[in-house]
Amino acid sequence: MAKPKTDQKAISEAQCKATLNAVADALYAIGGKWKLKIVVALMHGDKRFNELQRLIEGISAKMLSTELKELEINGFVKRHVFTGKPVVVTYELTAYAETLDAVLQTLSEWGTMHREKVKKSMKKTRPAEAL
Amino acid sequence: MAKPKTDQKAISEAQCKATLNAVADALYAIGGKWKLKIVVALMHGDKRFNELQRLIEGISAKMLSTELKELEINGFVKRHVFTGKPVVVTYELTAYAETLDAVLQTLSEWGTMHREKVKKSMKKTRPAEAL
Repeated sequence: MAKPKTDQKAISEAQCKATLNAVADALYAIGGKWKLKIVVALMHGDKRFNELQRLIEGISAKMLSTELKELEINGFVKRHVFTGKPVVVTYELTAYAETLDAVLQTLSEWGTMHREKVKKSMKKTRPAEAL
Repeated sequence: MAKPKTDQKAISEAQCKATLNAVADALYAIGGKWKLKIVVALMHGDKRFNELQRLIEGISAKMLSTELKELEINGFVKRHVFTGKPVVVTYELTAYAETLDAVLQTLSEWGTMHREKVKKSMKKTRPAEAL
């Protein structure tokens, strides 16, 4: 009567789908090439547009502008306009963006570890390539 | 003589750049729309190609094939061919892919939290929209 194997698989698949959905939700909000980089760049203090563009290598002004707007709409970034002479516009992380700290911490740690691993495997393969 | 503000900024910028590079390294290896989803799908046991395609909603066979090959080349996935009748091909996570556990855990937790937040803010805005 009981189908333990099927039931087990069903539970496992449900768990798997739940994790998949959660990861998908996260990637939908902060995935892509630039969003997390902008958040990291702002973690060490408010920045002006040009400062951000200088820090984040390879990003175009148009792309930075689009990404900042999306981050603002989704509540990760706040835009401040100081109407002096000259007008200064700065970008600041919101308190909500701080919820990303753990994600960025683990991602940054993993990235550092992965770079070391890739470096080592390149050192290993180089002498063989030279033969 | 001393320029504490500049020095402080320089250190902070160096730290910022280091984190940016580490996050960039991570995103280079596991960024994009599908790679982490495939890893999650394989976390709950080895899967055949069709099982993976069924689990990961929206992925095309061509894309799944490309992404699996990249994951295999980069040491995250192992492909097994069982030459019976019919030939069965399964995909398995490598031990190295387990180094992603912490990343996936925090990303999945953040995704769950973020979904709840978005749901709540949608509930709040709906009555206002109805006016």
